[in-house]
Amino acid sequence: MKRIIYADNAATTKLDDAAFEAMIPWLKEEYGNASQPYSFARNPKKALREARELIASDINASPEEIYFTSGGTESDNWAIKSIMSEANSKDALITSAIEHHAVLNACKAVSLMGCKINYLAPDNAGVIMPQDLEKAINYKTKLVSIMLSNNEIGTIEPIKELAKIAHDHNAIIHTDAVQAIGHIPIDVKELGVDMLSASAHKFNGPKGTGFLYIRKGVDIKPFNDGGSQENGLRAGTENIAGIVGMATALHENCRHMEENTKYITSLEKKFIELIGGLDYIRNGADPHVPGNINLSFKDADGEAILHRLDLKGICISTGSACDSVNTHISHVIRAIGVPDKYANGTVRISLGKHNSEEEIRDIALALISILGE
Amino acid sequence: MKRIIYADNAATTKLDDAAFEAMIPWLKEEYGNASQPYSFARNPKKALREARELIASDINASPEEIYFTSGGTESDNWAIKSIMSEANSKDALITSAIEHHAVLNACKAVSLMGCKINYLAPDNAGVIMPQDLEKAINYKTKLVSIMLSNNEIGTIEPIKELAKIAHDHNAIIHTDAVQAIGHIPIDVKELGVDMLSASAHKFNGPKGTGFLYIRKGVDIKPFNDGGSQENGLRAGTENIAGIVGMATALHENCRHMEENTKYITSLEKKFIELIGGLDYIRNGADPHVPGNINLSFKDADGEAILHRLDLKGICISTGSACDSVNTHISHVIRAIGVPDKYANGTVRISLGKHNSEEEIRDIALALISILGE
Repeated sequence: MKRIIYADNAATTKLDDAAFEAMIPWLKEEYGNASQPYSFARNPKKALREARELIASDINASPEEIYFTSGGTESDNWAIKSIMSEANSKDALITSAIEHHAVLNACKAVSLMGCKINYLAPDNAGVIMPQDLEKAINYKTKLVSIMLSNNEIGTIEPIKELAKIAHDHNAIIHTDAVQAIGHIPIDVKELGVDMLSASAHKFNGPKGTGFLYIRKGVDIKPFNDGGSQENGLRAGTENIAGIVGMATALHENCRHMEENTKYITSLEKKFIELIGGLDYIRNGADPHVPGNINLSFKDADGEAILHRLDLKGICISTGSACDSVNTHISHVIRAIGVPDKYANGTVRISLGKHNSEEEIRDIALALISILGE
Repeated sequence: MKRIIYADNAATTKLDDAAFEAMIPWLKEEYGNASQPYSFARNPKKALREARELIASDINASPEEIYFTSGGTESDNWAIKSIMSEANSKDALITSAIEHHAVLNACKAVSLMGCKINYLAPDNAGVIMPQDLEKAINYKTKLVSIMLSNNEIGTIEPIKELAKIAHDHNAIIHTDAVQAIGHIPIDVKELGVDMLSASAHKFNGPKGTGFLYIRKGVDIKPFNDGGSQENGLRAGTENIAGIVGMATALHENCRHMEENTKYITSLEKKFIELIGGLDYIRNGADPHVPGNINLSFKDADGEAILHRLDLKGICISTGSACDSVNTHISHVIRAIGVPDKYANGTVRISLGKHNSEEEIRDIALALISILGE
């Protein structure tokens, strides 16, 4: 395999070595079903409990508020569909125009059931303004779902303020934290959210696992009905290896967050310096998720840049991975109003803790070479 | 760790060595997101395609009819909730009284939306009789969901006949094949089913992955909305390692099915011979899933037997793992009418390809010792 420079960490991340090692016993000798009453199920049960405690401690939740799922998409679907399917048809949901498709398409599904959806527009930096929520919200609003940070442009949303407004109007607040968790500090109590979605493979955990934080007292019904796992709220035999891998990866990222952020931010800064001569707009806001560099190059074609970089072994993205089949300008880039002359030339470079300075230089030089031709 | 005799293979199974080895590259170096357009995503994409082809070939389906999910519970919920949420409130669903809770509780959820559910009673061997379906079905029936084999007593249902009746009445037929696939030959065309649920960890694959077979032409909407994975029908970044492990495990079981069945059936026979002196009823029917031995002992307590065996390092079950929190007599044992003097003394021993003759002897001797006291 030729040398790969992986700079698409917002799409997925390399599994942390410690997480991989932690998974192995649960894939091999410790295969017992955690729901069984015999001794052979004791270790898997303990592993589940410890994973739940570790994750809870990393976001200042209680262990019983962590519900394991198959990933961010399931967590988002659960939060939105379960809350809204209980709602009256006159109840409404407020979200934003720049959510991930897991939220947008779950909203579309509930709108077909009769729920009214209100999509808040962001400002030019991708920020959902609290005053806009304040204007849109009313006594009919049952749920507000706004992401903690955007997957394309990295903008961190003012969730604490948005949550306060939601609660002042007796609405439930959910946040899709898939791009944020493990990358920026999260304290669910400080944020004041009722539900928070997470996906392990976005923070150096394994694919196929995630969780939904549900604050004690939030009344939610199961999305996957069946056995009595996860306190009766999420049926299905627990994926112990995946869950242990997720907890280990999250904890690794959280305990090294300060140094990772410092390192990744320095790579970002170096990269921006190196491409100083190019004509581009940098999308998103400060604060943003460390490592997210979303650029719109003038009179360029993002698709072409992606493929030219690919030939040099460099992995980047044009929009979100989940939407890579659709090659038009993304809904996020449209929503923040990137000028036409730039919008088509948009690429997302997302750096992670595994990237080196040398790689950053190579990406910058490759970009300069491609755009200078 | 003391020596464990694992005889609870209907709850979960030991991961196949070949499946474990096949998963490793996708957990380590090949971590690319299969939805991305660059070269680094080519191997994961290929792995997904090959896994889909392998699974399809093992059940005589087309690759594009295999949709990866997080397991049997999600597959069942998807099949039932998506079909019935599109239905008119006067449409009805027919299922059986002895389904797994993933089906029963998904049915309960759609019944709260107004769908009428009809639960067919089994005969004393746990067989759902085609003439009973014939009597119950009418033009209002939208979906028939009957398991391929029962998780507690192993009875294999006459799905081919049931499917024909469903189709004669323009109903869709779904089968929960979680306990059957990888253990008995399955040909979806021969069975004539429209949808079939599978869970990897029941056939020596990893936990947290499964699939739903959806026959071409069946109109179903997504359960997890979001990105365009799985042909737009099941969103969420693909769990490549899990999917590859599942495909490998299924194929291993399928290509060794004849010899595994012969071996496991011989263990079963030996076991039954050894416990010949005890007073019990054997539940279920022939044909049954190889290795399923469900016994109701007279004047005994299944819970107590389980715990006494556990002290000897032997893992068995009283009912389904997913319902182990509820220690009363299971819905299946009630539905097949096991006499009161026996019902409370029910245990399920489920043998698998990893069990040895010596283990079978030890389980039998332990049972004789416990029940003879």
